[in-house]
Amino acid sequence: MIDCGEGAQIRMREQNIKPTRLNHIFISHLHGDHVFGLIGLISSLGMLGRTMDLEIHAHPDLEALLQPQIDYYCSEITFKVIFHPINPRKHALIYEDRSLKVYSLPLKHRVPTCGFLFEEKEKPRHMIKAMIDRYQIPLNKIPDIKQGADFIAQDGSVIPNDQLTQPAEKPKKYAYCSDTAFSKRLIPWIKEVDVLYHEATFLHADIVRAKATGHSSALQAAEIARDANVRKLIIGHYSARYQKIEELLAEAQTIFPNTLLAYDGLTLTI
Amino acid sequence: MIDCGEGAQIRMREQNIKPTRLNHIFISHLHGDHVFGLIGLISSLGMLGRTMDLEIHAHPDLEALLQPQIDYYCSEITFKVIFHPINPRKHALIYEDRSLKVYSLPLKHRVPTCGFLFEEKEKPRHMIKAMIDRYQIPLNKIPDIKQGADFIAQDGSVIPNDQLTQPAEKPKKYAYCSDTAFSKRLIPWIKEVDVLYHEATFLHADIVRAKATGHSSALQAAEIARDANVRKLIIGHYSARYQKIEELLAEAQTIFPNTLLAYDGLTLTI
Repeated sequence: MIDCGEGAQIRMREQNIKPTRLNHIFISHLHGDHVFGLIGLISSLGMLGRTMDLEIHAHPDLEALLQPQIDYYCSEITFKVIFHPINPRKHALIYEDRSLKVYSLPLKHRVPTCGFLFEEKEKPRHMIKAMIDRYQIPLNKIPDIKQGADFIAQDGSVIPNDQLTQPAEKPKKYAYCSDTAFSKRLIPWIKEVDVLYHEATFLHADIVRAKATGHSSALQAAEIARDANVRKLIIGHYSARYQKIEELLAEAQTIFPNTLLAYDGLTLTI
Repeated sequence: MIDCGEGAQIRMREQNIKPTRLNHIFISHLHGDHVFGLIGLISSLGMLGRTMDLEIHAHPDLEALLQPQIDYYCSEITFKVIFHPINPRKHALIYEDRSLKVYSLPLKHRVPTCGFLFEEKEKPRHMIKAMIDRYQIPLNKIPDIKQGADFIAQDGSVIPNDQLTQPAEKPKKYAYCSDTAFSKRLIPWIKEVDVLYHEATFLHADIVRAKATGHSSALQAAEIARDANVRKLIIGHYSARYQKIEELLAEAQTIFPNTLLAYDGLTLTI
């Protein structure tokens, strides 16, 4: 989960997202609309009898703010909440597992803020099943072949890997950049991601207000998407002043046509 | 406002309740579903530029839990949040203004909990307008007459008050009792209230679970309503285990027919 505003647990329930699938929460910055849902979520996970650790990656101040609430309101929970402090001013690898890397992306906001880049690791190549029979390949050789090894048959002949396997899907990349003023520094870090979420709080006509509050215009979000050559841009975090958020979309699309408006409950397959 | 669970500010907006009309919040106990909405509400009131104090009546522990969050997340708010500690174990007058008294009602729950009795003060009698002309009553005499005084005409004759005024409406009383196990102690405090909200977390078939968790059955809520001779009972706080909350209503109505089911957004004129 990225960020956790008030009511996040209610949205999860509405979307039928199983709470047991939630293990890591990444918090971009300590403004209320990004953190006020944490205590309710933790409390409800406790009532569901969760036992697996919940790991929260956030600015170090969060632990001092949240732990006393957990101690008081959730004294009976049967799982650990583990805080991983991140330095939002640093572009760094902050999480890694078998299949995924997560990097922090320093943003430009009124308080220390970072976005996140989710990067799948290179996957093993796909074995072509028919080749296992044809060359009598023992099962214990398959992991190496999936990693790119050739196969040496019993008669000593070498079957090159590209006859045995097909390339894996390209690893997917998703970047989340909110809240932030226009920041060109982002571009190399998010180069060619499949999906970029970038805030677009204002229309460019309100650029003075955007700068004053550490936010971006829809036009600026689109410029970042274009210059980073991303595949798809999602904009969101609209100011309540706009009645028609379609105007934000239209503005972004003048620069970057493959732009979508985020809305509550939007589900997207990358 | 009584209690403030996660998302309370969202419900207020849905119901078009003006935040400027909110000045006092009464918190029954420090369980998450009764307090997690406070920080978001305070934060949003700050963004709306509120300047009037917001007064919170709650167990003294709340201040220690909430103030650090207000200091961190709402450092720019332009109003004061004033905490009034209440002793939930004591039946006491905890608030009074020109037209209203609020009493705490000690309840029986797993943590110190109290309900609240809202009691309108006696209102002045209504002046019968036609009498002002008939007896040439000067305007400065009217406040006394509304309080029950007779009027002495210029010729010395006494016009008795009941010829000049009509009685005021009977002061209204509302009692809120959640969360609580069955507690006969409540009955004298809430005698003949116009509306009683009493929790009914369980069906009476689950009375063992109700007792273990410090909650009431629908039957018990209705017994309290009957024995206190209230006019109307509203039940709520249903356990998620029940698919058909109408069964809770039916159970209560066997004892107290004038029972209603509470639901999100229920609006009731007393």
